[in-house]
Amino acid sequence: MVELSTVRDEASHTREADEPRDSLLVRFGVDKPLKLDAGVELSPFQVAYKTYGTLNAERSNAILVCHALTGDQHVASQNPVTKKPGWWETMVGPGKPIDTERYFIICPNVVGSCMGTTGPSSSNSKTGKPWGLEHPVVTIRDTVRAQAMLLDHLRIDTVFAVAGGSMGGMQVLQWAASYPDRVFAALPIACATRHSAQNIAFHEVGRQAVMADPEWRGGRYLVEGTNPRRGLAVARMGAHITYLSDAALHRKFGRKLQDRSNPTFSFDADFEVESYLRHQGSSFVERFDANSYLYLTRAMDYFDLAADYGGVVANAFRGTPTRFCVISFTSDWLFPTSDSRAIVHALNAAGARVSFAEIVTDKGHDAFLLEEPELFAIVRGFLDGAARARGLATEKR
Amino acid sequence: MVELSTVRDEASHTREADEPRDSLLVRFGVDKPLKLDAGVELSPFQVAYKTYGTLNAERSNAILVCHALTGDQHVASQNPVTKKPGWWETMVGPGKPIDTERYFIICPNVVGSCMGTTGPSSSNSKTGKPWGLEHPVVTIRDTVRAQAMLLDHLRIDTVFAVAGGSMGGMQVLQWAASYPDRVFAALPIACATRHSAQNIAFHEVGRQAVMADPEWRGGRYLVEGTNPRRGLAVARMGAHITYLSDAALHRKFGRKLQDRSNPTFSFDADFEVESYLRHQGSSFVERFDANSYLYLTRAMDYFDLAADYGGVVANAFRGTPTRFCVISFTSDWLFPTSDSRAIVHALNAAGARVSFAEIVTDKGHDAFLLEEPELFAIVRGFLDGAARARGLATEKR
Repeated sequence: MVELSTVRDEASHTREADEPRDSLLVRFGVDKPLKLDAGVELSPFQVAYKTYGTLNAERSNAILVCHALTGDQHVASQNPVTKKPGWWETMVGPGKPIDTERYFIICPNVVGSCMGTTGPSSSNSKTGKPWGLEHPVVTIRDTVRAQAMLLDHLRIDTVFAVAGGSMGGMQVLQWAASYPDRVFAALPIACATRHSAQNIAFHEVGRQAVMADPEWRGGRYLVEGTNPRRGLAVARMGAHITYLSDAALHRKFGRKLQDRSNPTFSFDADFEVESYLRHQGSSFVERFDANSYLYLTRAMDYFDLAADYGGVVANAFRGTPTRFCVISFTSDWLFPTSDSRAIVHALNAAGARVSFAEIVTDKGHDAFLLEEPELFAIVRGFLDGAARARGLATEKR
Repeated sequence: MVELSTVRDEASHTREADEPRDSLLVRFGVDKPLKLDAGVELSPFQVAYKTYGTLNAERSNAILVCHALTGDQHVASQNPVTKKPGWWETMVGPGKPIDTERYFIICPNVVGSCMGTTGPSSSNSKTGKPWGLEHPVVTIRDTVRAQAMLLDHLRIDTVFAVAGGSMGGMQVLQWAASYPDRVFAALPIACATRHSAQNIAFHEVGRQAVMADPEWRGGRYLVEGTNPRRGLAVARMGAHITYLSDAALHRKFGRKLQDRSNPTFSFDADFEVESYLRHQGSSFVERFDANSYLYLTRAMDYFDLAADYGGVVANAFRGTPTRFCVISFTSDWLFPTSDSRAIVHALNAAGARVSFAEIVTDKGHDAFLLEEPELFAIVRGFLDGAARARGLATEKR
């Protein structure tokens, strides 16, 4: 069984959703509702975000970084909940490919998450209690609309670039489709224009695992003082397998036994890979909200760019001024290279300026978060070229 | 949430484990214990099995069919629990590739299962109550040992062939390794000589889903009158994805919505693939025992033929008189073709007689259970050739 050594403080968890630490916060009042694809308006609502670097006088050097399913705004600095480094410190920072000495980095927490942007664990202003399942279902497009409102608030008309991997890459594509004139360059990494049937299936299993936990209480666990830890841990364990590759699991773990020389003939974590997965599950529940997991997997499932453009992805990008760099990884089976090629074909058909790189690695989908020198070189090169085209100063600021 | 319309009758479930319907049963007394790899003896114990066709006077035309993880002895006749046709009626029957008019087919339920061969839901003779987790952990080799005892009981010295897919294929390989002189021909389909780290990981998620269900009660649910339906359903849903291919899911479901034209923006089963998976989960729990699921996934995890032979698979087959036909499917990512090639390489290194076929299909791992004409043709051809070599009458009996 998954061991959950640390009992999470429910109160502090709710506080993070409403009063995120180490973050900037913009609150939109009832006069500025977020219009949702579900046909309702979310108001008031708030967006938690982080910035790094300095916005130049022309307000032209901003890079919007979009995070993945369980990511957050703490892209390049310590996460206040986990006390771990930011999730993309390999990519974002002084002298890094997304260089905080040249660019002004903005990373907002997505709508529906649990780190300070409004989501199911945020307090509903009408009741004073956490939304739970009363929160409307949100989409990738909703999140991008909220991000556009954030940019308006920051008085940034056009971002130099939008970059992100996985669900972050979906936001990048949605940005380029919804606001072509506001995006100079786009970096969608390890993503797709729609979630596949297999990916929806994996998400559904995760949601069922959460909802099968009696402590989920129909989504009212924060109010009722319970916590569907075990269901969420199972969901995370299953999802985590899809983030890796068979080859990476084999290389890391093979069939190695955990601290023993012979199998125990029991249901203990005999194999290292079991122990590793259990750890992934139990550490995840310390930092993430179960309902947010439901909402954000749902947002990914609903993502289907073609559906909004007459069934043809290329229509989303016709006449786009944005320049694209599409990146995939050979061992990513969640968003395989064929998905990225489909993006490139659509961009070609739309007459867009696009470059494409498939990076050879055995690290699977998670490669975009890991130490991948080729990835860093490509991102740096693409941004350098775009910066010259944009007329951004090439020297460090 | 998974809807479970039929409430299972616990009592009848336990009865099936002890008194299987429409099956033959051999009970081994305390004088004939099953020696387990776990270092203990299981006694008394019983094996439930089915036979089809007629054993010839020379007792030389028997084919042992080994079932997969959640299979059973009802290979070619109605399953008394589900009332559905046997699980391999496409392959086994009069005039079928495994021809019941020529061969005598024996299909035993594996040790640790829940359909009449001793397993965790069987009554422990010492307590009169279901074993639960008190049942010792079993391995593929243990099951093959029990099957050898069954053949002894049937006074069959050598089987003409052993055939099976997935976990059934593991048994085939173990048979050829443990009892080379008792196996004339071997048909391991869609399997491997060891369970991979990724496959162990998927199994572990399924086990955690079962054990996270409070109704599992530490494995004592039969005694306590509960049933970890929801956990087991989640486990099955996750596993089911691995039995199919991305292409098959896409072909069958794509992103089609379930009986509606627009998304509901809810956590209902909006997509057909969700509805399909939920059905897979809920129907599975009506026929299978949660603890058996733990035991048999564990047995597969432990399977590692090389480990018993100095780390070299070929050593398991040195000087084998058995002829092999190894079969894989292009879209099987659970036991990919590379696993089958490794079997073939080992057999070649051991100097065995082996043929190999990789069948092109998008149906994934489950292809071995489905309508695959090429599979049928290959099995028929291999058995025909082996029957001639064995001197079996070629005319129908």
